[in-house]
Amino acid sequence: MARILILGAGVMGTALAVPASDNGHYIFLAGTPLDDAAIASMKAGAPHPKLDAPLAETVTILAADEVMPHHAANADLIIVGVSSEGVSWAAEKLNALLNVKKTVAFVTKGLCHEGEEISTYAEILPPRISNMAHFIGIGGPCIARELGSRTPTLSLYASHNHAAAAFAVRLMQTPYYRLAVGHDVSGVEACAALKNFYTIGVSAMQTRYPNLSRTDNQSKNPIAGAFNQAVQEMAFLCEKLGGQRETAFDLAGLGDLHVTVGGGRNSKLGSGLGKGDTVSQVMAGDLAGETVEGIATARIVAALLEKIGDDARKLPLAHAIVEAVINDREFNFDFSKLF
Amino acid sequence: MARILILGAGVMGTALAVPASDNGHYIFLAGTPLDDAAIASMKAGAPHPKLDAPLAETVTILAADEVMPHHAANADLIIVGVSSEGVSWAAEKLNALLNVKKTVAFVTKGLCHEGEEISTYAEILPPRISNMAHFIGIGGPCIARELGSRTPTLSLYASHNHAAAAFAVRLMQTPYYRLAVGHDVSGVEACAALKNFYTIGVSAMQTRYPNLSRTDNQSKNPIAGAFNQAVQEMAFLCEKLGGQRETAFDLAGLGDLHVTVGGGRNSKLGSGLGKGDTVSQVMAGDLAGETVEGIATARIVAALLEKIGDDARKLPLAHAIVEAVINDREFNFDFSKLF
Repeated sequence: MARILILGAGVMGTALAVPASDNGHYIFLAGTPLDDAAIASMKAGAPHPKLDAPLAETVTILAADEVMPHHAANADLIIVGVSSEGVSWAAEKLNALLNVKKTVAFVTKGLCHEGEEISTYAEILPPRISNMAHFIGIGGPCIARELGSRTPTLSLYASHNHAAAAFAVRLMQTPYYRLAVGHDVSGVEACAALKNFYTIGVSAMQTRYPNLSRTDNQSKNPIAGAFNQAVQEMAFLCEKLGGQRETAFDLAGLGDLHVTVGGGRNSKLGSGLGKGDTVSQVMAGDLAGETVEGIATARIVAALLEKIGDDARKLPLAHAIVEAVINDREFNFDFSKLF
Repeated sequence: MARILILGAGVMGTALAVPASDNGHYIFLAGTPLDDAAIASMKAGAPHPKLDAPLAETVTILAADEVMPHHAANADLIIVGVSSEGVSWAAEKLNALLNVKKTVAFVTKGLCHEGEEISTYAEILPPRISNMAHFIGIGGPCIARELGSRTPTLSLYASHNHAAAAFAVRLMQTPYYRLAVGHDVSGVEACAALKNFYTIGVSAMQTRYPNLSRTDNQSKNPIAGAFNQAVQEMAFLCEKLGGQRETAFDLAGLGDLHVTVGGGRNSKLGSGLGKGDTVSQVMAGDLAGETVEGIATARIVAALLEKIGDDARKLPLAHAIVEAVINDREFNFDFSKLF
């Protein structure tokens, strides 16, 4: 039996403890300072507030100040499951914890914009965390709450070091949590961030052309057309960010886009835009007080489009989303600009 | 202004008359012997029974016995929009009509199984129609009724002859009907047929894992996982059928799969299977009297899997669908067989 340290006790970090403990491993689930409420609840034996069942007894719950270097030193695998806002905290924490080299798997995703450079966590994090042996990027269509309920879920663990990814997969895979091993870390990280952004545009099509002849009131051609366009544009941007086109056409790309359009905050924002609201209107209404990751990504994509220059004509959906988010204008994805 | 002859006055053939006539062309919409009711209705100025609005006055409605060689001879483009069952009728009709070489675009899709050979219409039809100058395969995410209502729709026109496909696209494209030009005719035809088959399996996931915490009662991870798996398997089979993998990752593949899972008879069959019913139970219930194209495709995919032999282990979703359709067993797509 192995020991797995999970940093971040949000819904995703906590959900990952479910397959890990089902495999008989000892899990140390450590919260960030923002997870105190969830930590208290789980320490009292209750489920995580956003999950449906309590964790196994082999999961040790730790508050942010309770996680110690020996937890890291004894871990066979470390998983980081903080939000993108927490990634700097996680990097610092790992530097404080890690006295020996360890492989770290990140389910956190995001793009970074520093100076002229736009990069994924696959480039940014390894030089920042001195004792990280190998970086693993986790991608694919996984809503945490469903994983926590043992609903069949596919994901992808990618690393430049195949053995490291394959080892993590052996620890984490269960009959309901099926894991592919990949190598295109930059591509997985790029797609994981871009899918939140593109979800805004695809989800807008779910409300833009109402169809009263269907129970869900959706016209399907525009949704499928926008979904396909999003996948093509993700492949293009994935390559610009140092990844491979193929990655966008598999679990971390179209698979994750599919699940993200299926529900969540990025999708809700898109639905509002489809009805003709602006981003500020939706954020003041249904999404008041929430963080929508696709908005932060849109700011970086805007910089990326500028950097790419002329090629950006190939990305009409990205331009439409950027225009709506950055300039707080009505979302207008003009199909007549395609082909 | 051009003249376009559309053979087949089903819902798709008729819907194609909408963008064509919006572009100012003269359309001759000819029914098959099975279209008599729709033809009578449209001749009386009413809409096609499955469309929402009547056609323009520039569309001439013809019964099967009214279409003459001069209609073909004067046509700048011929489009065949019959069902797969009608494709032999269409080939014979074209041989009777065509005295000069003409390009023919087929929106009809299907796979053929003759002797040892499993082929797409892209291989089967050109040698059968002596005066067909170029074959165009039409694919992509297009529900006919939505196209008929001028809802934004993307499609792909593919031909070995680029100029022929580009010419057809110029005639047919409107601001709401956006058309890409392609060259992988076999791939487009393979995907167009396979997407009906795979829709059965993906749609089964919409009902298999109910999730009461959502308004649509669907768990999203299994649907997205199966959708992604279907796309990967389509790419594999597309190549086996003489097409290119890339075609499965674009409009004719994942795009069309997306729209087909969105609604229609293949999807309804899948939903029934997801609930635990067998194909014969669903076909005796909700789908009584209907033709489900994915069932015919499943028989051909079964033969294809046999022909491929060992490689078929790579296609667990195809095997699960074939098993359910051919042996009338419960649908059982075991995620634990993946990876």
